[in-house]
Amino acid sequence: MALGLVTQHLARLGTLSATSDHASVVSINIFVALLCGCIVIGHLLEESRWINESITALVIGVCTGAVILLTTKGKSSHIFVFSEDLFFIYLLPPIIFNAGFQVKKKQFFRNFMTIMLFGAIGTLISFFTISLGAVALFRKMDIGSLDIGDFLAIGAIFSATDSVCTLQILNQDETPLLYSLVFGEGVVNDATSVVLFNAIQNFDLVHIDAIIILKFLANFGYLFLTSTLLGAFGGLLSAYIIKKLYIGRHSTDREVALMMLMAYLTYMLAELLDLSGILTVFFCGIVMSHYTWHNVTEGSRITTKHAFATLSFIAETFLFLYVGMDALDIEKWRFVSSRYGLEKGSIALHKHSCVFFCSPGKSVQISLILLGLVLVGRAAFVFPLSFLSNLTKKSPDDRIVLKQQVTIWWAGLMRGAVSIALAYNQFARSGHTQLRGNAIMITSTISVVLFSTVVFGLMTKPLLSFLLPHNAKHFSSMSSDPSTPKSLLLPLMENGQASEDEIGEHVARPSNLRLLLTKPTHTVHHHWRKFDNAFMRPVFGGRGFVPFVPGSSSAQSLHGWS
Amino acid sequence: MALGLVTQHLARLGTLSATSDHASVVSINIFVALLCGCIVIGHLLEESRWINESITALVIGVCTGAVILLTTKGKSSHIFVFSEDLFFIYLLPPIIFNAGFQVKKKQFFRNFMTIMLFGAIGTLISFFTISLGAVALFRKMDIGSLDIGDFLAIGAIFSATDSVCTLQILNQDETPLLYSLVFGEGVVNDATSVVLFNAIQNFDLVHIDAIIILKFLANFGYLFLTSTLLGAFGGLLSAYIIKKLYIGRHSTDREVALMMLMAYLTYMLAELLDLSGILTVFFCGIVMSHYTWHNVTEGSRITTKHAFATLSFIAETFLFLYVGMDALDIEKWRFVSSRYGLEKGSIALHKHSCVFFCSPGKSVQISLILLGLVLVGRAAFVFPLSFLSNLTKKSPDDRIVLKQQVTIWWAGLMRGAVSIALAYNQFARSGHTQLRGNAIMITSTISVVLFSTVVFGLMTKPLLSFLLPHNAKHFSSMSSDPSTPKSLLLPLMENGQASEDEIGEHVARPSNLRLLLTKPTHTVHHHWRKFDNAFMRPVFGGRGFVPFVPGSSSAQSLHGWS
Repeated sequence: MALGLVTQHLARLGTLSATSDHASVVSINIFVALLCGCIVIGHLLEESRWINESITALVIGVCTGAVILLTTKGKSSHIFVFSEDLFFIYLLPPIIFNAGFQVKKKQFFRNFMTIMLFGAIGTLISFFTISLGAVALFRKMDIGSLDIGDFLAIGAIFSATDSVCTLQILNQDETPLLYSLVFGEGVVNDATSVVLFNAIQNFDLVHIDAIIILKFLANFGYLFLTSTLLGAFGGLLSAYIIKKLYIGRHSTDREVALMMLMAYLTYMLAELLDLSGILTVFFCGIVMSHYTWHNVTEGSRITTKHAFATLSFIAETFLFLYVGMDALDIEKWRFVSSRYGLEKGSIALHKHSCVFFCSPGKSVQISLILLGLVLVGRAAFVFPLSFLSNLTKKSPDDRIVLKQQVTIWWAGLMRGAVSIALAYNQFARSGHTQLRGNAIMITSTISVVLFSTVVFGLMTKPLLSFLLPHNAKHFSSMSSDPSTPKSLLLPLMENGQASEDEIGEHVARPSNLRLLLTKPTHTVHHHWRKFDNAFMRPVFGGRGFVPFVPGSSSAQSLHGWS
Repeated sequence: MALGLVTQHLARLGTLSATSDHASVVSINIFVALLCGCIVIGHLLEESRWINESITALVIGVCTGAVILLTTKGKSSHIFVFSEDLFFIYLLPPIIFNAGFQVKKKQFFRNFMTIMLFGAIGTLISFFTISLGAVALFRKMDIGSLDIGDFLAIGAIFSATDSVCTLQILNQDETPLLYSLVFGEGVVNDATSVVLFNAIQNFDLVHIDAIIILKFLANFGYLFLTSTLLGAFGGLLSAYIIKKLYIGRHSTDREVALMMLMAYLTYMLAELLDLSGILTVFFCGIVMSHYTWHNVTEGSRITTKHAFATLSFIAETFLFLYVGMDALDIEKWRFVSSRYGLEKGSIALHKHSCVFFCSPGKSVQISLILLGLVLVGRAAFVFPLSFLSNLTKKSPDDRIVLKQQVTIWWAGLMRGAVSIALAYNQFARSGHTQLRGNAIMITSTISVVLFSTVVFGLMTKPLLSFLLPHNAKHFSSMSSDPSTPKSLLLPLMENGQASEDEIGEHVARPSNLRLLLTKPTHTVHHHWRKFDNAFMRPVFGGRGFVPFVPGSSSAQSLHGWS
């Protein structure tokens, strides 16, 4: 769906690389070298209390942008033009797929209702808060012509949390509840904000009545359901093919390739059908880790686990580097600094006479207002909805305490590439930021993204260790002791969720027997397990079907398969 | 270097996807779905005696091209325009890197002189044979204006063997000598033909004298040496960084990402410096598998081994699919069919009046002549050079017998994407095949590539089983017995070359003690081992430094590292 919104950025990219092919080779070299640099520096700063990988990449990106700006004498600061295509077609799918693939499924589904509440209703609350705030505060300022559609778009743009950044800041093993809430919310949030954004661009905004709102809700429901089903279907199909044909018999590589390509296919298919690719590929990842992953050879299991994480890691680093570089795009800032909207022809005249950051005051003012709105908009749903969610939970362990609420509020404040992509789409339709109001909105979006990622991001680790001291201590003890590297804490063969399922079966269930009867989510889970074992696993494979013996080769379970 | 030759194809690609973004999403969907199809069909045909994966992909590509041709009513047959950039920047590096990474190093370096002889001198012989043959045979035919540069270019284009196809047809475990000879030759061959091609485009061809030939030879030597050194440097740097910083302590993914990115960086750096990226990334792969691979965690070892193979596999399949689709490009065939060169404007007039394959006779004639020249050109160096090589070998086991010579001759006959890329570069400078002679050469190149890959490829497996019955039997028994899947024949932890080194140490050496003294390559190998153990391994890591215990985790060898 997000792709349906794509403008002509690729054309600019294409023209750029065609005009000087040598330059594009240089760009790739610089970019890959910077990526290597990010990895090494990220490794060295791993034990830092403040920095995380996204911030490293973002700062390196901004620095490189500044260097390029100086060496090209202010002509440009980026190597590539920000391209929504690059983002939505190549970078986002591996990140979200890997998140689904590695997510602790039990934790995720146990909190499913809360996640939906936060992701759908929460995003709507945030959207209305930010839109209304923007209308109230920006109307009085002289920032060019923004109509009602623009204000609603601002609401949608700044309601889109950055799920990628969330993944980096919270740790699934340390804070599983928070991770699944914040990240799960981020995934649903994407669907909501994209639906919102599409609705704003397509629906008649002047005559808002009950029918339009109903239509909108129906649209959201349809989108959520079909996207999920498509993802699940893709995952199940891959499981069935790999199990039925026993692809691993001839080649491990074919299994891995098939998993990768099928996951990507579901994403692109969702984009083609105007669904939410992010939701689709996320559920495809979940289904693949539940069924397909258990049908492949041992080598493939280890490979997929690490290879998907690596691809996701590279895409994330690339993304932050890219956003950092794009931040200093001189052309956009020039538009802001000029008093009125300029036509394309007159830019050339101003190119050398204009000082960088001519009128930073207004842009800073707007960015600060937007940041404030983001803070308020998120607070406006996290605390009330947590309260609502707590009312339905009987066990005090499942309730979201205030400290956790603050963490959830904080961890979802980061705005990222989705916001930038939506802002480009709304305010740079012709590929150029022709009107001053539009240019200001784009530079402000970038400022908010940079500030929220760097400053909020920097403060997250300390905040976590302050609010949740137990986890933070656990974390620091893990990373400071070199004799127990993280990857060796878990035996290689177990997937995390497999071991967690195990615990759920043998340890948690007897003690939770009463809870099982009283709590609806547990009952749903119980029925799902029965259904899964009776119908799904015999057809699609999975751990329950063939007893999992750590260290056993797949040859031993061969007779059960063929 | 190959990239330096790149024309404006990317611009066409960019324009294409900008004009209709929806179309590009559709294209990606079709392409990924076809890739999945290729994998599944390739798996089902694995046991076939005739078909291999390249042929499957090529045939599927041609069929899809035909379907697209019919549905678009003859407007176009391909989804993407053939782009040298796509080929040289994205598809080739993973294929060649993986080849270097998985190659049996001992076998490769033992035959190093023979490989160089075949790759450099052999390619030159083939180049002269084909060029002279083309001059003699094409001069009399009416195929438009081709000058001496064009004829020499034809020689270079058809001397470039398809190393990718070789990888698929020969099996490293079954015929190690042949594999290393044919594949090693293919890698050196690339460097030679690219140098040749560049020389033809840059040097003054009318006044060929001793100085130009010397310059040319010096250029080749420089290219070979610097490319190799750059690759080795990249590999050693990655080994040093990973060993020194012990990246695996925090994250397995970082190790894998760093290996991937560093390898890619050497390739792009080589392209930037006008060296042979293929040679560079090949040697980078060798060095990485010798040093870096032993410094990473166990998880990373398994992951890199399979992930690099998977990426290479996807790129190969993509490539053949792509070449297959491009084969039916209607515009090129229309140019051939028209009597004289047409301007761009007049194509439109002919678009619907022109029947497909109007004058197939001439194109078939030329393709057959070229195929004949390829056969003769390869025979002209394989048999004489094998004879020369045999003269230097004292042990009859190391000699290349006639049956092996025939296999080498046959296995290198395939022409692939490198030929197509060079042909586009020479004959389609403006992005359009304006002159009839040029258009004929491009369609003929595609015909030769298709024919050689499909027909020669189809006949290779039967030919191998006829010429080398022992290996073929071994092969068929391996793949027909489902209870011993290929990937389980070797324990997961050993890398193939590791086990081979082991054998070389403990079994082969005592019996070869006398040979070691009499044969120079063995002496070189002996000194290299001493040097490697004394100086290289303490700095860059590698198996010899930390004793390799199968199944041991890297935690045990931690104290030796930090």
